[in-house]
Amino acid sequence: MKNPAFEMEMKVRDYECDLQGIVNNANYQHYLEHTRHEFLLTKGISFAELHEKGIDAVIARVEISYKTPLKSRDKFISQLRVEIDGFKQVFHQEILRLPDMKLCIRAKADNVCLVNGVLSRCDELAEKLIN
Amino acid sequence: MKNPAFEMEMKVRDYECDLQGIVNNANYQHYLEHTRHEFLLTKGISFAELHEKGIDAVIARVEISYKTPLKSRDKFISQLRVEIDGFKQVFHQEILRLPDMKLCIRAKADNVCLVNGVLSRCDELAEKLIN
Amino acid sequence: MKNPAFEMEMKVRDYECDLQGIVNNANYQHYLEHTRHEFLLTKGISFAELHEKGIDAVIARVEISYKTPLKSRDKFISQLRVEIDGFKQVFHQEILRLPDMKLCIRAKADNVCLVNGVLSRCDELAEKLIN
Amino acid sequence: MKNPAFEMEMKVRDYECDLQGIVNNANYQHYLEHTRHEFLLTKGISFAELHEKGIDAVIARVEISYKTPLKSRDKFISQLRVEIDGFKQVFHQEILRLPDMKLCIRAKADNVCLVNGVLSRCDELAEKLIN
Repeated sequence: MKNPAFEMEMKVRDYECDLQGIVNNANYQHYLEHTRHEFLLTKGISFAELHEKGIDAVIARVEISYKTPLKSRDKFISQLRVEIDGFKQVFHQEILRLPDMKLCIRAKADNVCLVNGVLSRCDELAEKLIN
Repeated sequence: MKNPAFEMEMKVRDYECDLQGIVNNANYQHYLEHTRHEFLLTKGISFAELHEKGIDAVIARVEISYKTPLKSRDKFISQLRVEIDGFKQVFHQEILRLPDMKLCIRAKADNVCLVNGVLSRCDELAEKLIN
Repeated sequence: MKNPAFEMEMKVRDYECDLQGIVNNANYQHYLEHTRHEFLLTKGISFAELHEKGIDAVIARVEISYKTPLKSRDKFISQLRVEIDGFKQVFHQEILRLPDMKLCIRAKADNVCLVNGVLSRCDELAEKLIN
Repeated sequence: MKNPAFEMEMKVRDYECDLQGIVNNANYQHYLEHTRHEFLLTKGISFAELHEKGIDAVIARVEISYKTPLKSRDKFISQLRVEIDGFKQVFHQEILRLPDMKLCIRAKADNVCLVNGVLSRCDELAEKLIN
């Protein structure tokens, strides 16, 4: 990904692998979510604190292409960039295996905000994300 | 979904809910995977046995739309139908909350087969799925 | 277990198995927790509702003996009985593989109640549990 | 813990928290397992490679005392020391919250080795662990 807004290094944990010996599909969503939340923290936004204030950031849609599976002991880089599209904050995300930087996952996750359960524009959040 | 090829009833387990009090995004992939594997079993196909034979059914791409969140104690129906598209087995899946049948999840998962790590046509598997 | 207060049937889901091809240790805690919460519901106690009222049922200590591993597609019975010991509600739990009723897990889980974060006696809860 | 043989720093991921807003009990077993496996790697032992050779390191018994819950964004130190007791490798483990070093978890996990499914002494593994 060119010019990621954020990236972090992670490592596969053995319990994340399933009986095929590779990371289970669902765990990539955990990696992607954790990366988004760590990114939010760098912008001064806490997912947990938002929830306590009655604002729930929720994923409305996700697309994930699985390119190369990660295995036990693999390290990887998880990257993202974000664009604002009306009510949506669109996260473009990639997971790249270390050290060969092979593309493992390409994903797009559309986030929206519910304020007390109602879909809301959340301009304040959007502004923080892109600055 | 009209004419699902398979459906099963499940129930949210509390540990599947996150700090927002709703089922965590990644857990819907668990529900979707479990439903596919239970469907495979009705066709005489075991995911674990395939792996032992050197055949790995893997998801190449998934799209998930999150419509309504499930909560603690919710029961739901998980449905699928499948179509064959070249090397891919395409699973169309829905999760519907009980008893009001509200649509929670609409998903499309493209499965492919790796035989000893190489993408393969797997006609035998495909044939079993649609009969 | 003689005279369980509650039992339910469950089935291993493939994603619960790790690269050894057996259910990952941590997932037995999920089975044990889900069984306790389903038991609580039969007594009119909702874990999620308790939390919303400021009462958190939390496990203070757990002991688990792993006797026989569960594998993909195994069905099993999860049983419990409960005794009250001062501030603690002590759950004795077993997981037995079907159909041979082989003992897989024997566990003891000590539950306590925090009311607004403070350890509390919770006699009302205890009374419901044993009646 | 005095003189841990190994320690590592970790951070709570939001998806590890449940509807009580604290890390779910089962996830501490994930932390404990990951710490053991990272420790094994420093001793030149790979859990995944062992499995491929027909040697399965499995937990026979675990005792966990939950002292203080971890929450979203908490960082923590996970420590262990190991002693050999006949066929068992006994891991003593603690999880301490950062930066106040408050004790969150104290655990004891008895590991045994199955060689092609049969309980075995595994002296080679034991020797590596304590040197």
